[in-house]
Formats: sequence, C-alpha cells, structure tokens
Amino acid sequence: MIPKKIGVFDSGAGGISVLKNLIESKNFEEIIYYGDTARVPYGIKSKEIIKQYSLEALDFFAPFNLDLLIVACNTVSAYGLNAMQAVAPYPVIGVIEPGILALQNAIQDKNARILILGTKATICSNLYSKLLNAKGYLNTFGLATSLFVPIVEEGIFSGAILDSTIAHYFKQYPSTPDAIILGCTHFPLLADSIANFYPNNPLLIHSGEAIMEYLRNFYTLQNFNTKPKISFCASDSVENLEKIANLWLI
Amino acid sequence: MIPKKIGVFDSGAGGISVLKNLIESKNFEEIIYYGDTARVPYGIKSKEIIKQYSLEALDFFAPFNLDLLIVACNTVSAYGLNAMQAVAPYPVIGVIEPGILALQNAIQDKNARILILGTKATICSNLYSKLLNAKGYLNTFGLATSLFVPIVEEGIFSGAILDSTIAHYFKQYPSTPDAIILGCTHFPLLADSIANFYPNNPLLIHSGEAIMEYLRNFYTLQNFNTKPKISFCASDSVENLEKIANLWLI
Repeated sequence: MIPKKIGVFDSGAGGISVLKNLIESKNFEEIIYYGDTARVPYGIKSKEIIKQYSLEALDFFAPFNLDLLIVACNTVSAYGLNAMQAVAPYPVIGVIEPGILALQNAIQDKNARILILGTKATICSNLYSKLLNAKGYLNTFGLATSLFVPIVEEGIFSGAILDSTIAHYFKQYPSTPDAIILGCTHFPLLADSIANFYPNNPLLIHSGEAIMEYLRNFYTLQNFNTKPKISFCASDSVENLEKIANLWLI
Repeated sequence: MIPKKIGVFDSGAGGISVLKNLIESKNFEEIIYYGDTARVPYGIKSKEIIKQYSLEALDFFAPFNLDLLIVACNTVSAYGLNAMQAVAPYPVIGVIEPGILALQNAIQDKNARILILGTKATICSNLYSKLLNAKGYLNTFGLATSLFVPIVEEGIFSGAILDSTIAHYFKQYPSTPDAIILGCTHFPLLADSIANFYPNNPLLIHSGEAIMEYLRNFYTLQNFNTKPKISFCASDSVENLEKIANLWLI
C-alpha cells in the first residue's frame, strides 16, 4: 500500500507543526487534519480520558477511507495509540517511535545525555525513557514543560516570558543535554529559544521530521511534485485552527 | 428559600477560589463542587461549545436537589448562564453580576478607570464592559490575559515568569486603573503580583467575595457556625481537583 490519502490527528493545533513536514514532502495527495479543539488540551488530563478521546477520533475519520492515520500528538501517542491500532482498519502511526528512531539514527553513543520534554501526561507515561532505555540509552531525563503549550498558543515564540519559563524548567535538569526530544508537537515552534539555552548546540528531535524519516523507511511513498489537498476539521469552531495554520505553515 | 445545599460549577479548578469564600462564610450546610476537568479549559473555546457544556453541567447536578447553583466561572457566566437559568429548577447565579455590584458598592465615581481581566472568551463577550457602561461607568478596558490560567495551574503565584507575563499584558493598557476586575476565578491567586504592578494600589474585585456580598444582599442565609460538608466531583479524575483544593483552601 502506498499511502496517498492520510489523516492527521491532534488534540488541537500542535499537530500543524507535523503537518508542515507532511505537506513539504509532496508525498501525499490529500491530507485531512482533525483537531479535537472542543476538548483541547489533552496533556493535562488522565490516561483514561485521553484513551477514550483517542478512540473517538477514529469515529471522525471513519467516512474518509484513509490509507493511513498519523497521530501528530505525543500525549495521544503515549496513551491512546495501542487502542487505536487495535481497532482502526488502516495503519495508525504515532510520533514517539519515529522520534526514537530519529535519535538512534543521529546518535550512536549510548552514553549520550538525552533530555525529553513533553506535557505532564507524556512525561508521566515515561514511554520515551522506557523505549530509549530498551535501546541501551540509559542517560535519559523526562521534564514536563506544561507552560510551553499555552505560550505557543498565545503566539509567543521568543522574549522574556519564554526565556524565564525555559530557565524555570531547565534548572531542574542537572546536566547539559547532547540531545533534546521535543516531545510535544507545539515545541518545534520554540526550538531556537530551547536550543539557545545550552551552549553546546544539542541535537533537537522534531516529531514532524521524525515521522517523515519513519515513513520513508517503512513505506513506499509516491512523489506528487505538488502540495496535497488539505482539509481542516475540528470538534469546535475550525476558524482558530485555520488561523494558526496560516501562521505556522508559512 | 434559604439556600443550604448548593452546587458550585466550574470548567476546572478555578472555582475553588470562590468555594473558599463560600466555605468560610459558614452559611451553607452542604456544597457539591463539580469541575468539568475532562474538557477544561473553556476560556479558549467557542461561544457555542461553552453554552453546550454549561447546559450539560445541569445534568450532573440533577440528582442532588440543590437549593441554588453558583457558576464559579466567568466564561460560563458570560456565555452559558442565561441558557442554564432558563431550564434549571433552582436559581443559577453567575459571577459577573455580583462583580458589577461589588464594584458599584465600592466605587461611586463614574469616571473611575476600570481594567477587566479575563479569558479570551470572557473578554470577547464584552459582557463586563456592557454592564458597566449601562451603569454609567464608561472608562472600561477589557484585557484577555490567557496565560494567567495555566500559570496558576502550574502552581506559580509569583516570580519572573509571572512578572514578565503581567508586564507583557499590562503594557497594552494605556492607563493606570482605579479598579481591576479579576474576571476569572484563577486570578485571585495572582492578586498580589497583579496589584503590585501599579503604584496606586487599585481596588481588586474578586468573584468569591463578590458572590458572598451578592448572596447576603438578595437571600436570607442561615448561620451554621461550622464549615459545610463538601463533595468534589469531576468529569475526569477527581484527584487533581482535590490536590488543588488542598493547596488553595489553606
């Protein structure tokens, strides 16, 4: 199966940072983006409710006859993915496994210091650390940087608020990371400020880049030489989603 | 009717700042607090979805035979209150009208500069300004300070993050306020930092204090000389709500 018509699911607008890479690849004919904006954010909610909402997203995608669904949300990838994969009639791909693979491809040194950033729910799941430890990377540290999400949603990508927030969280990490996993699809928009905090130019793992690397690895992709048809859908008003898309997809 | 058994509704934990005043009054026998934590926050969502969620909260309260329901959320008070009042079999009281009344009682000068802080939804509703203007207070200014909510939820009540956020928002207000309406039930927890931004010690209007003032004005209240029985309920896990209650209700 060559995936041409794909879905992208996120709790809200964060997945647009992943959508950007999917669009730019020109490997897809049609992309349907669905944000559960009536119940966003997921990252502050319980495991059970995240799993329930993730399964309900499949009902939304049911009429579209997708070739493949991308879960462009780390929180859903941590708690809802297995349940979705068990019932969806097409492959469902999360962002965590691709992130791990991208890190493995970039860093062979198993002693590398890896800082994982994410929502409360993603960090509490401990999934990144578990998977990295299983691959032999033992020097991992998970940090819930909850305020990064509303800061991005507020359209703030640099400046005093962001810098003081980064300093507040990063003082909890007692080392200098060789790599930082941006374990939330909002975080690539803060990449410069995050990277600049450390003097050693750490490698940043970005879910959107990782997912394209993963798809090229495991699927045959068609080259359309043109951008795909995109539909934005949301459980609340779609306006705000389109506004953010216009801002982020430049 | 003397309200003895009352409900308190909020999208999440913010209403606990109002609950505190209700508890301390010792005027109630039993309080049932319900937070729609599975869908929190409301303040970033559309008018239609806020109204729908507000009406659904009445289903939760239906079995309790309440004497009165307090909507301890400015966003619901702005968009859902009228619809709730139209169908509930008991009085439903929001926080906006009491806030206006508290301001009227405290400030007679109709030229007073009034700064209204709230979520995006509350400020977009323009309801505080409309009601104040109708009472003759024409010098009003609404400011959506969206980041205050997640900052409080993160347990940050002072320091560099808050100060830079306050400076970021308040620079949009071209004056020095005589009064600030804390138009979101999270904001009283930031009261000191907010007030300290201005040199003139502006009056702060707090929803919890305003609602007790309103109830004493319009209802006969019994004095129980003891704190009420309290039940915490939530649409997602109730643990986080209880954790915040333990922190806030000190």
